[in-house]
Amino acid sequence: MTQVIVLNGGSSSGKSGIVRCLQAVLPDPWLTFGADSLIEAMPASMEGSPGGIEITEDGGVVIGPKFRALERAWAEGLVTMVRAGARIIVDDIFLGGAESQQRWRQALDGLRVLWVGVRCDAKIAAGRETARGDRVTGMAAAQAEVVHRGVVYDLEVDTTHTESLECARAIAARAG
Amino acid sequence: MTQVIVLNGGSSSGKSGIVRCLQAVLPDPWLTFGADSLIEAMPASMEGSPGGIEITEDGGVVIGPKFRALERAWAEGLVTMVRAGARIIVDDIFLGGAESQQRWRQALDGLRVLWVGVRCDAKIAAGRETARGDRVTGMAAAQAEVVHRGVVYDLEVDTTHTESLECARAIAARAG
Amino acid sequence: MTQVIVLNGGSSSGKSGIVRCLQAVLPDPWLTFGADSLIEAMPASMEGSPGGIEITEDGGVVIGPKFRALERAWAEGLVTMVRAGARIIVDDIFLGGAESQQRWRQALDGLRVLWVGVRCDAKIAAGRETARGDRVTGMAAAQAEVVHRGVVYDLEVDTTHTESLECARAIAARAG
Amino acid sequence: MTQVIVLNGGSSSGKSGIVRCLQAVLPDPWLTFGADSLIEAMPASMEGSPGGIEITEDGGVVIGPKFRALERAWAEGLVTMVRAGARIIVDDIFLGGAESQQRWRQALDGLRVLWVGVRCDAKIAAGRETARGDRVTGMAAAQAEVVHRGVVYDLEVDTTHTESLECARAIAARAG
Repeated sequence: MTQVIVLNGGSSSGKSGIVRCLQAVLPDPWLTFGADSLIEAMPASMEGSPGGIEITEDGGVVIGPKFRALERAWAEGLVTMVRAGARIIVDDIFLGGAESQQRWRQALDGLRVLWVGVRCDAKIAAGRETARGDRVTGMAAAQAEVVHRGVVYDLEVDTTHTESLECARAIAARAG
Repeated sequence: MTQVIVLNGGSSSGKSGIVRCLQAVLPDPWLTFGADSLIEAMPASMEGSPGGIEITEDGGVVIGPKFRALERAWAEGLVTMVRAGARIIVDDIFLGGAESQQRWRQALDGLRVLWVGVRCDAKIAAGRETARGDRVTGMAAAQAEVVHRGVVYDLEVDTTHTESLECARAIAARAG
Repeated sequence: MTQVIVLNGGSSSGKSGIVRCLQAVLPDPWLTFGADSLIEAMPASMEGSPGGIEITEDGGVVIGPKFRALERAWAEGLVTMVRAGARIIVDDIFLGGAESQQRWRQALDGLRVLWVGVRCDAKIAAGRETARGDRVTGMAAAQAEVVHRGVVYDLEVDTTHTESLECARAIAARAG
Repeated sequence: MTQVIVLNGGSSSGKSGIVRCLQAVLPDPWLTFGADSLIEAMPASMEGSPGGIEITEDGGVVIGPKFRALERAWAEGLVTMVRAGARIIVDDIFLGGAESQQRWRQALDGLRVLWVGVRCDAKIAAGRETARGDRVTGMAAAQAEVVHRGVVYDLEVDTTHTESLECARAIAARAG
């Protein structure tokens, strides 16, 4: 039985919607954590500071060593939550592609993980970014392909033509 | 040239996304007002009070006379904004169907209005409600059909299989 | 009997809290509109665009002609709402001091207006800006004094040592 | 050197503002977690469900076994984050008073913890609840006293007459 579901996809690919649907359809209560909630837990000054996380005008993201150090400690904490009985959905953006997955593989070593790729056509994702009214535009297009480079999945869903709830049902069926 | 675009559709039919895309694709800056921003402008006590607006457990909405009085004054104000040169997108939920449209017709009398129906399959809208994580579930399904009853449109869009941005482009093309 | 209450004060001076308390203590339902809700009604592209509204790195605000044109139409609309029976709280930041008040005076001509200054010590306001976690820091300090320059009030409240609710009660007592 | 700062106080006592100020004034980057972020991580269905967390009409809060199980696993995870080098601010509401503290004491056993009580006069907190526009009123008054019953602190701050930033500075001075 799966203990951790890792969802990887670019900005505006539809991960958050799938997470909420997953939490609604999975029979047990799962906790969800991700890049957004980690940033929320950090000092506001981390955003835009060297060593922290910087977002460039064209939607690029640069991650520094201070951010990475906290992220590592946080990931170890998530593993403990799982060992203590919680089941967890991790919602992340593998900015480094295969290398990001490798980091997570090491962190989650020994746990039963379901790796899920959340794809969305770059142009469609860019349109949804506009529809969401996000201030930084360009992220969706910049990340759509690159985050999947070299990443290996147990399951891939594509929100281009499939609703969040349907994607969630497919994932839940595999999470057993 | 259109002065007011009225979008009517049920909860979770995708109106807000279309509005943001419309504001992005229309060449001039348009202001947007709607049921949500009106409620935001009202005292918090209006929600859940008799005479105000009450949301039932199954997602029904009951509107009282105090709410209606403020709504009427607000609609007259929007008309003045248009006469003063602003172009406006109104995003509403015609809970009363044709009767609601009749109220807007009277309020907007003399202005060039484009009436747009925003449809979404009830089951799909309900799934998107889950994906958004709204606390009150049931609204999407309850409103999907009823808000269009007897309403006459210049244009209808359907978000079931069409992206917000594409819907917005079709509307913008008609708004001239 | 007052028809419009205009609150003027710098960023983080506590206007929003006073507005919500005012709506709670005033016997009738009042609508509230302000700089924030106006920006919310505009296209996202207005922020950061020349002609629209630009926020400089040190918290300065530059307003352009496109923004002003929509603002004027919007203010005329608010007047109509009042003439149609609504009572309105306007919550604004007089970036131009006396000149901003003059613009509002012309717009609201013929209505019974209560002019309220919301003051807060610049250092205290800057601390509350930090406590709110706003991304743009510096606005509170930059605006604390300048927005009151040359402005004439019926009543002034100071949130430095007075709670929002108490300020609201003092204002409500004068609004009759 | 302190590894964990635990802030305990009732709803609307000002904990969140103090946390953001603490993150701004502490020289190192601290992560913050609390009751709100935990609920955010849970399925939406946890709220209002038996076994989860239920909020009564008068602002009471009832916590069930499903919620407690996830909370326990989550607290163990936080401990691991600290052992992995992160420093953490926990922002909680000790609904059970001394008993809640005892649960945290066991969870945080072996770590250097600074226990901080965040007090606010019940009437003032109730006024701030109104100013924040929270939908559920009554929580502030209901929790103001009871959450401190039997709890032992290293430091107490009182937001009734003291700004968040000043409280944060006092705490930071003790956290070393």
